[in-house]
Amino acid sequence: MAATISMGQYLFKRVAELGNEHVFGVPGDFNLAILDELFKMPELKWLGTCNELNAAYATDGYARIKGMPGALVTTYAVGELSAMNGVAGAYAEHAGMIHIVGMPARMVQKARLMLHHTMEPGMDQAIYVEMAGPIRKTYTVLMEEKTMAQEIDRVIEEGVLSRLPVYIYVPMDVAGVQLDAKRLETPLKIEITNSDKDVEEEIIKSTLDQIKAASAPAILGDILSIRHGGKKFVEKLMNLTKFPTYSTPLGKGVVDETSPYFNGLYNGEVSFDGVASSIESSDLVIDIGPLHSDSNTGGFTRNITDDHTIILAHNYCQIKGKKYDGVHFLPVLRRVVEEIEKQPEAYTKKHNWTKLNPPLLNNSTSGPIEQSFIWQRIGRFLKPGDIVLAESGTAQFGMPDSPFPENIGYITQTFWSSIGYTVGACLGACVAAKEMKRPGRVVLLVGEGSLQMTVQEVGSYIRFGFTPIIFVINNNGYSIERAINGPEQTYNDVSMLWDHQKMLEFFGARKETGIPGKSFACKTVEELEAVLNDETFNSASCIQVCEVFMDRLDYPWRLSTQVGVTRAKMAKAAAALQVA
Amino acid sequence: MAATISMGQYLFKRVAELGNEHVFGVPGDFNLAILDELFKMPELKWLGTCNELNAAYATDGYARIKGMPGALVTTYAVGELSAMNGVAGAYAEHAGMIHIVGMPARMVQKARLMLHHTMEPGMDQAIYVEMAGPIRKTYTVLMEEKTMAQEIDRVIEEGVLSRLPVYIYVPMDVAGVQLDAKRLETPLKIEITNSDKDVEEEIIKSTLDQIKAASAPAILGDILSIRHGGKKFVEKLMNLTKFPTYSTPLGKGVVDETSPYFNGLYNGEVSFDGVASSIESSDLVIDIGPLHSDSNTGGFTRNITDDHTIILAHNYCQIKGKKYDGVHFLPVLRRVVEEIEKQPEAYTKKHNWTKLNPPLLNNSTSGPIEQSFIWQRIGRFLKPGDIVLAESGTAQFGMPDSPFPENIGYITQTFWSSIGYTVGACLGACVAAKEMKRPGRVVLLVGEGSLQMTVQEVGSYIRFGFTPIIFVINNNGYSIERAINGPEQTYNDVSMLWDHQKMLEFFGARKETGIPGKSFACKTVEELEAVLNDETFNSASCIQVCEVFMDRLDYPWRLSTQVGVTRAKMAKAAAALQVA
Repeated sequence: MAATISMGQYLFKRVAELGNEHVFGVPGDFNLAILDELFKMPELKWLGTCNELNAAYATDGYARIKGMPGALVTTYAVGELSAMNGVAGAYAEHAGMIHIVGMPARMVQKARLMLHHTMEPGMDQAIYVEMAGPIRKTYTVLMEEKTMAQEIDRVIEEGVLSRLPVYIYVPMDVAGVQLDAKRLETPLKIEITNSDKDVEEEIIKSTLDQIKAASAPAILGDILSIRHGGKKFVEKLMNLTKFPTYSTPLGKGVVDETSPYFNGLYNGEVSFDGVASSIESSDLVIDIGPLHSDSNTGGFTRNITDDHTIILAHNYCQIKGKKYDGVHFLPVLRRVVEEIEKQPEAYTKKHNWTKLNPPLLNNSTSGPIEQSFIWQRIGRFLKPGDIVLAESGTAQFGMPDSPFPENIGYITQTFWSSIGYTVGACLGACVAAKEMKRPGRVVLLVGEGSLQMTVQEVGSYIRFGFTPIIFVINNNGYSIERAINGPEQTYNDVSMLWDHQKMLEFFGARKETGIPGKSFACKTVEELEAVLNDETFNSASCIQVCEVFMDRLDYPWRLSTQVGVTRAKMAKAAAALQVA
Repeated sequence: MAATISMGQYLFKRVAELGNEHVFGVPGDFNLAILDELFKMPELKWLGTCNELNAAYATDGYARIKGMPGALVTTYAVGELSAMNGVAGAYAEHAGMIHIVGMPARMVQKARLMLHHTMEPGMDQAIYVEMAGPIRKTYTVLMEEKTMAQEIDRVIEEGVLSRLPVYIYVPMDVAGVQLDAKRLETPLKIEITNSDKDVEEEIIKSTLDQIKAASAPAILGDILSIRHGGKKFVEKLMNLTKFPTYSTPLGKGVVDETSPYFNGLYNGEVSFDGVASSIESSDLVIDIGPLHSDSNTGGFTRNITDDHTIILAHNYCQIKGKKYDGVHFLPVLRRVVEEIEKQPEAYTKKHNWTKLNPPLLNNSTSGPIEQSFIWQRIGRFLKPGDIVLAESGTAQFGMPDSPFPENIGYITQTFWSSIGYTVGACLGACVAAKEMKRPGRVVLLVGEGSLQMTVQEVGSYIRFGFTPIIFVINNNGYSIERAINGPEQTYNDVSMLWDHQKMLEFFGARKETGIPGKSFACKTVEELEAVLNDETFNSASCIQVCEVFMDRLDYPWRLSTQVGVTRAKMAKAAAALQVA
């Protein structure tokens, strides 16, 4: 007789198969049965956060560092709805997420009992399932015992292959249903392949030919190359070909920035001097894993035309205007790299491109701390192996200025842009870093307004023994919005009464608990330098806050420029639409 | 030439017409244009919260005290999705909410630009509109200038009449569109009426006849009578007829509990001794504004059959089994009360019912603080005019034990049951209390696990000068879940490292800011009595925290009983379904 395994354990075995060692979420009465199954498994640990939005953010941050979808568990209605914004962000930016949602027992659903967390007498209790439609790739509601195992496999496989969120709804009475354990002997099919091998071959050949033919090619590594497991191939391509290679605001860190071939962060008109003209004058740009959103293209001001571009995307490839729909870049890129590896000298070029180095924007040694100073200074503070999270806001627009040492895990959410995201994501990043035994520190860069959104998770850092370095940019409100509209409007204010110097104490790092924590407040460059040069601070041996006071009307140049460019573009588009 | 008014101001004039003096929300680049219009209006003030879920909770709490839908403003995608759980709660419990959501400009939507907060290239930017479908009564997307004013009116009117959330989506370019101001001279049609007067008349007559004919009638005032503006009529009915009157867990406080006619809180088998048999032995129960959910009916253990019940609901009336669909109770109840007022002696009864008084569960004067003690003690601490918020968890299951003085504004979310809700709702309640110049204090009863969900809004209490009394039940995790499943499972733990005694300082009440705040920690009855008997504490002249330490496995009897009853019912239902 075949061995069986509970549905809950079957699901979590599959979650663990992806390399997950932790599952994030918040308990609720409809998911406790499946959590009981999780708690029987030594290979997976539960990490409960303070609320579900933060849990989704944490899962997203964890997945970005691990490179595989993470798992999130929420409860019926109140939990799953609270998490929606976080799941949507994982969708927009392809973080990957398996969202497991507890539901009423099947017979309760059938009886349509007016349970808590429903909304009306006799309503269809699966009503929340439809709400998540736009923010997931696929889903399953585990009602039929016969198909549960294959449904779990199908949904997880699609989640991995697409790197989009997927949902598994678990009625509370099915967590213990016994499934055939033998099925687990067959691994999940999660290798990305293209079904049409002829087309794939054509793209590979064409790409190689184009590279050979080009006289001044360039590589543009964007965020989805990282998210879909292509980072190492982008780096290999750069190192083999020695082509000048560029990143984007979202894709920053895709290649080692200390490499002689890394030539800057390209963001259309919102780039450092020389970067745009350098890449735009290439006769072939290999754009890998693109995400062409407003803030990732300098407000749609890139000037690279299709006729000198190869686009290798997650859902299409396009060679000088010829588009192949539904082809995933990863197998293509892997083969392209393999082919070049066989005879790299056939692909390298003699063209003399000029290595660009980012300018030093502000060499203050004293006085107030300015946007033009802080981000590059933080860049110099970073060490190889660090993970850096740049919150939506000034941090996100400032960090592109900042040269990175090698092997930085960079997390920012420039496309979805939900403020407060990094505070949750930082927890996930800490967990991932620990699992992966990464050598570096975890550094969180967050404004005080964003921090207020999700601050309770600082308590989770302390609870679970993590020691991130938290830079709090205290500049009196939502400066990113002041730059856009209403710089003096009080709707852009937030409470200025919080004492960030007491935050770690409140959340648990203090004498009585025996958990060390340090807090610093810096109003001048001198004060900041003292902290950044302090050896203990650098060691990150305990959790630390470095609060940096800055002017509320001081914006990173990239933010002001982006706003200006966008306004101009919008006006132009409006005019064009009115003509059309 | 007719005077005009901007679309934004037109909308907010209508919001103000309902009696709103504040609008809640979080700014974001897509709603700044409409906020600019709001900021031109002296009659409405903006109240920015720390995040959108909390803003939705605050709007809900505000609306419950004001008795009219409040207004919530969020931004495109990230904001509206974060608020969803809060909006759904307002739907389930008919709090009323006008959710105004900023959107990309119309021409940007048409061009399908890949803006931040979208998810995919070329996607329909209205995709999030469909996600909110199940949690709103109606909505409008303001694309057409010709119909904007009438659409705003239609949606707000439906929101008031239904007390369900409604959505108004505002593309950022329309906030300044000029509309005909003359339309504002016609007030919104928000009086609840029934279209079929004959049917209404039949119900009224039949109700009066039944009351006359009954020998031992009783009144059961439930939550939707309060939400739909019927509280005063329930009270009048009680006072005119002198019938024994009962409330429910959700409807607690519907009538003055010090009245000689108030006879207890009815919750099926989960009621104090004598209450169920008393109401169930009535030959006529007038059930007004019912919400028959699990936790509001003792896990479906009410024993009142249709043949001796008049149900006056928001969407139907039913007299001894004869159902009239689509008839709203309010005009019916108003007329019934008017008729009885003409000759009350025709309706009062001679039957001798026994006035029940709630038992004193625990008369401790020393030692550990127990669930059987705390809630009744807090009830004795309350004063007329206070607003009390009981969080989902032990507070919500404990407060039904607690007799109220007159005129208590009671907020609890027993049906939707989203933990963390009251912390946001308390902010809204504080705002409403101030606007209405209510005489009492605002008292928040929240467990430490729920508080962790939404704690940042404590900072908003301080920021805006409110002085609620916050009782934090610190019992080491989610005790409500321990009662249900896994009492010793660590998924029911939360961080025990937070120092609630430092909370007010962290968020802003401390020497340097000049904002006073007081914090107390009580582990024994003696310590708690000292605080509760302190005159300064009672005066609530500054914000205060009273942390009460309790055992994590100590549950209110109503929680344990409800769990037991529900388990038995579920088992029975499962068996019945299997037979069927």
